Amino acid sequence: MEWLKQSIMYSRGVAGGRSGTTHELTEAKQGKYHFTMGPYSDPVLTVQPGDRVVVETRDAFGGAVKTEQDLPSKVLRMPFVNPQNGPIMIEGAEPGDAIAVHIVSMKPRGPNPRGTCALIPFFGGLSNTAMTATLNEPLPELVRKIDVDEQGVYWSKRVTLPYRPHIGTLSTSPEIDSINSLTPDNHGGNMDLPDMGPGSITYLPVRTDGARLFIGDAHACQGDGEICGTAVEYSSVTTIHIDLIKGWQLDWPRLENERVIMTIGSTRPLEDATRIAYAELVKWMEKEYGFDRWDAYMMLSQCGKVRLGNVVDPKYTVGAAIEKRYLAP
Amino acid sequence: MEWLKQSIMYSRGVAGGRSGTTHELTEAKQGKYHFTMGPYSDPVLTVQPGDRVVVETRDAFGGAVKTEQDLPSKVLRMPFVNPQNGPIMIEGAEPGDAIAVHIVSMKPRGPNPRGTCALIPFFGGLSNTAMTATLNEPLPELVRKIDVDEQGVYWSKRVTLPYRPHIGTLSTSPEIDSINSLTPDNHGGNMDLPDMGPGSITYLPVRTDGARLFIGDAHACQGDGEICGTAVEYSSVTTIHIDLIKGWQLDWPRLENERVIMTIGSTRPLEDATRIAYAELVKWMEKEYGFDRWDAYMMLSQCGKVRLGNVVDPKYTVGAAIEKRYLAP
Amino acid sequence: MEWLKQSIMYSRGVAGGRSGTTHELTEAKQGKYHFTMGPYSDPVLTVQPGDRVVVETRDAFGGAVKTEQDLPSKVLRMPFVNPQNGPIMIEGAEPGDAIAVHIVSMKPRGPNPRGTCALIPFFGGLSNTAMTATLNEPLPELVRKIDVDEQGVYWSKRVTLPYRPHIGTLSTSPEIDSINSLTPDNHGGNMDLPDMGPGSITYLPVRTDGARLFIGDAHACQGDGEICGTAVEYSSVTTIHIDLIKGWQLDWPRLENERVIMTIGSTRPLEDATRIAYAELVKWMEKEYGFDRWDAYMMLSQCGKVRLGNVVDPKYTVGAAIEKRYLAP
Amino acid sequence: MEWLKQSIMYSRGVAGGRSGTTHELTEAKQGKYHFTMGPYSDPVLTVQPGDRVVVETRDAFGGAVKTEQDLPSKVLRMPFVNPQNGPIMIEGAEPGDAIAVHIVSMKPRGPNPRGTCALIPFFGGLSNTAMTATLNEPLPELVRKIDVDEQGVYWSKRVTLPYRPHIGTLSTSPEIDSINSLTPDNHGGNMDLPDMGPGSITYLPVRTDGARLFIGDAHACQGDGEICGTAVEYSSVTTIHIDLIKGWQLDWPRLENERVIMTIGSTRPLEDATRIAYAELVKWMEKEYGFDRWDAYMMLSQCGKVRLGNVVDPKYTVGAAIEKRYLAP
Repeated sequence: MEWLKQSIMYSRGVAGGRSGTTHELTEAKQGKYHFTMGPYSDPVLTVQPGDRVVVETRDAFGGAVKTEQDLPSKVLRMPFVNPQNGPIMIEGAEPGDAIAVHIVSMKPRGPNPRGTCALIPFFGGLSNTAMTATLNEPLPELVRKIDVDEQGVYWSKRVTLPYRPHIGTLSTSPEIDSINSLTPDNHGGNMDLPDMGPGSITYLPVRTDGARLFIGDAHACQGDGEICGTAVEYSSVTTIHIDLIKGWQLDWPRLENERVIMTIGSTRPLEDATRIAYAELVKWMEKEYGFDRWDAYMMLSQCGKVRLGNVVDPKYTVGAAIEKRYLAP
Repeated sequence: MEWLKQSIMYSRGVAGGRSGTTHELTEAKQGKYHFTMGPYSDPVLTVQPGDRVVVETRDAFGGAVKTEQDLPSKVLRMPFVNPQNGPIMIEGAEPGDAIAVHIVSMKPRGPNPRGTCALIPFFGGLSNTAMTATLNEPLPELVRKIDVDEQGVYWSKRVTLPYRPHIGTLSTSPEIDSINSLTPDNHGGNMDLPDMGPGSITYLPVRTDGARLFIGDAHACQGDGEICGTAVEYSSVTTIHIDLIKGWQLDWPRLENERVIMTIGSTRPLEDATRIAYAELVKWMEKEYGFDRWDAYMMLSQCGKVRLGNVVDPKYTVGAAIEKRYLAP
Repeated sequence: MEWLKQSIMYSRGVAGGRSGTTHELTEAKQGKYHFTMGPYSDPVLTVQPGDRVVVETRDAFGGAVKTEQDLPSKVLRMPFVNPQNGPIMIEGAEPGDAIAVHIVSMKPRGPNPRGTCALIPFFGGLSNTAMTATLNEPLPELVRKIDVDEQGVYWSKRVTLPYRPHIGTLSTSPEIDSINSLTPDNHGGNMDLPDMGPGSITYLPVRTDGARLFIGDAHACQGDGEICGTAVEYSSVTTIHIDLIKGWQLDWPRLENERVIMTIGSTRPLEDATRIAYAELVKWMEKEYGFDRWDAYMMLSQCGKVRLGNVVDPKYTVGAAIEKRYLAP
Repeated sequence: MEWLKQSIMYSRGVAGGRSGTTHELTEAKQGKYHFTMGPYSDPVLTVQPGDRVVVETRDAFGGAVKTEQDLPSKVLRMPFVNPQNGPIMIEGAEPGDAIAVHIVSMKPRGPNPRGTCALIPFFGGLSNTAMTATLNEPLPELVRKIDVDEQGVYWSKRVTLPYRPHIGTLSTSPEIDSINSLTPDNHGGNMDLPDMGPGSITYLPVRTDGARLFIGDAHACQGDGEICGTAVEYSSVTTIHIDLIKGWQLDWPRLENERVIMTIGSTRPLEDATRIAYAELVKWMEKEYGFDRWDAYMMLSQCGKVRLGNVVDPKYTVGAAIEKRYLAP
């Protein structure tokens, strides 16, 4: 892809677009998957900037929901959901740097790959939850198993959805916290942004030596907000290309693709997540693209694009984007 | 446009797609513009279902911001902003019905048309406000005047934005309240949805006899969320085609274009606006498109699209949409 | 009560604590009760500053819930709930002034007075609602009729609650909006503050000539937040003493009693209502009690008191208070 | 105190009100203070149910703000604020149990004890913050040093506040997360509830073997909401009496004092924290005090009390309480 040559990753990364070793992070190599992202777990792999990793991700249910009769409340125990591969150490990464994660490809894993979508009691955007703690009875608990291939997501007899894979959870480690894999925050985490698929580069802040990259939670497709609480969750083979950008201090994750740059905020209420994302974008345009702060703010009011990642996790995620064509000097 | 023939407006409207009389709602005919939408104002026009109205809208500042030196805090007095044309009475409209407003075209009005964007003290998504009442000093007050034509919005030497006109404020009357034109709610109002432009049909609930349609607040373009608080506000000649759908009781506004159907929610916090929009969409799919409720909910989690209208008004607006191709039986 | 002589009402009011004429605003005199507060209704009474009014208020259900079998969804039609007495015109009141409403006494009205508490479908703090629009089934609909006298509220065989009467809804008119009586905002309205009982003085902003005072929604008692959506709603005879403070421009309502001064904010989300209330209190201490702004802010962090009025209405209400003893020069 | 004999701690605790060994957790014994609460730190002390611990807590600034010239942005580095004593292991505590922490006494520590209150940039309830991320300039950064003794908090020449000590941060360990000490959640944490002082008993859920109790963040006094972001932060000698209640599974912390029982919720937005607290209280009344669920809900709407703990931390805290006299059978 031609645009990659102009990407921030290729322009400013230590590896400068070169590809180094390709590592295999298989189920066997991973061994124990992780349910928190933090500084307290043992590295599973160390890579150089420019290396690629082929990751065997598990689905968000850890594979425990095998049939439509396997109700989450029966086969899962909280908080052991959304298993993560990693931590992957990036050589040379130090606090104050950023790492770049280019998602090269995502493929369904295994024979007859199927995705899973579930309604889980007290979870989801149109349900009462542990936090929106009303006294209503929960919604019904339901599981859907969906055939998935690289052509489509075969939702029902009536509807086939396009295969639009992306990574739901991607993060470095916080400096001292260890955060469960259900929660997004300024280290990344469970952002559930449909933009985070093949052809995207995500930039994450480094807050501990080696960065400690975690990845998991592949989705075959997902609507804005992941409104019922789950996407088409599936196990994937995801290939990523990693680089390191020295001295690029990020307060929140960022994303780039051929068309846009995007900033990402995660908190509650949702207007605050939106404020974070847009404020980050204004400051980025000011600092690195030569805009006056107030001109950037007013211009985004005319051409900014918002993606609702999730409105169901313990924190909600919003991406704010501007098309690259408007950034030309 | 071919798709119109299959639209809800053409299929279910009293006029069935036929065009009746075309009325001119000029500045002179309008006389006094309105700053609340409610049942207490005198009709300016009565139309039949199927009629068209060519409306001369004023910009959100009522034309008072003529130069970049005309600061809003000097030339405006709250709450007299966002002047509305109307109320237009639709013959035969009764509580429990819906009206359809097809925006046929929007043109900049007057010679050398210019739009206005302003930073207004204590207003905007990245500012403290009367409600997010922090003790910070306000952001600077700034005005931008922008040349606008049907080809583009000439933002700066560096950036030309596409002309993407839409109506910011469209509403019927609440049953008993009279609501200022800055606020969106379940009667419509200041929703600031970029989708509400030429080629769209908005459906609004009828809550008083004659519906009492108000329209104003044309934008030459606007980003998602209208983050600085104002779009490229301009005075327009907007042509609408109106119809009446008997017995279609709507709790919240809806929108249709060639590609999607959309439900619209407005409240705070933003997650509640999102909940309203998506819950309305689930119920609509269940009631009129033959989906099981939980199937609709889970499927929207895979293919629903969210538009952030505004995150700056007294209530925030979210649209939730699904592509029509997924609604086929 | 001795403290009244030092109250703002007595010190700064036009009548200076003197009592003028006592008016009777009986059911018969009121005639039609009102369901919006705004400038579009006909005055029912005109008073001089210093006059008293003995008001016969109706309960929030307009008396329609007579037995525990009268379910609100059967006997009420929205938005015709929470009937208001008024508008009462105060002679000489002009925009920029404030009116003072001292609640002198509140008595249950009628023989065998009973209050009513109800669980109303899709209403209440621990229920999904029209705004927190989840897909859960509603909570059960229930009515409780409770004997009330000036000694107690006879909730159940097990529990007798103290009689702590207060006015749930008190307001002047907005400048141009007409707002339903369920909603509180900066003109007052349905604030549901337990502090607004006998011995309190509420100060409301005047935004239209004559102020247009509305009053209703008496509660025999109420917990913080009115969590189920209703208090012990009853019909009352409420005696108020009214005064006018010229040139005291209020952005939000304020309250005073023997012990504290309080500012009142109403919006969503609840943190914004809290911000409004505390920011108003900081500014008040700065402007009228000789505090440095930042000293006031930091000191309230040590001694400010918060009352949650309601967390169930279309906007939530918070009062922030400081004890008068800390205001001494 | 007589009421303690009827307390849950004394009635249901393993030690049944008996006092065992008294441990000293001095600065020296503590050694390294902690900035996260989680399962990854080394125990500093192991106690039996019934034991007492005399804890030397550090102030929230770790003692680094010694004068009014020591600006937090200069002398602190985030996230190393709010140092915690612990973890204290309670013998026999297993997941599914609760621990009881009775605060016996709190005294200012050291000669000439002084407290500290600070305005910290981008922190506080009336400030823009990292989450309410507006583009406003920060509020001024200010430090106040305040003399404190057991009679009073000597705020200024004008104002002396009562000494009302309490513990701002108290928690057990989450099951797998390790959460920074600024954040409250369902394991306790930085709740900043003024009720959590001498004479109170806090009940915390046990989620890891030994419970892993953390304690710190003493306040000499604090207003509702801790609105400027800090209380009168001071170093204390705090004596606690600990017990263990087997098989009492708590989803959220609870508190008891002579007068009330209270449930505690922490999240954003603030209405959700309120929902958690009240929903927990309804369920508690239903499960352990013989109330019908809907009777409890409706009755709390008449007599529930709300305490706003903090509206400034990464999550906000609300306590909902009912007087014990209404719980009598």
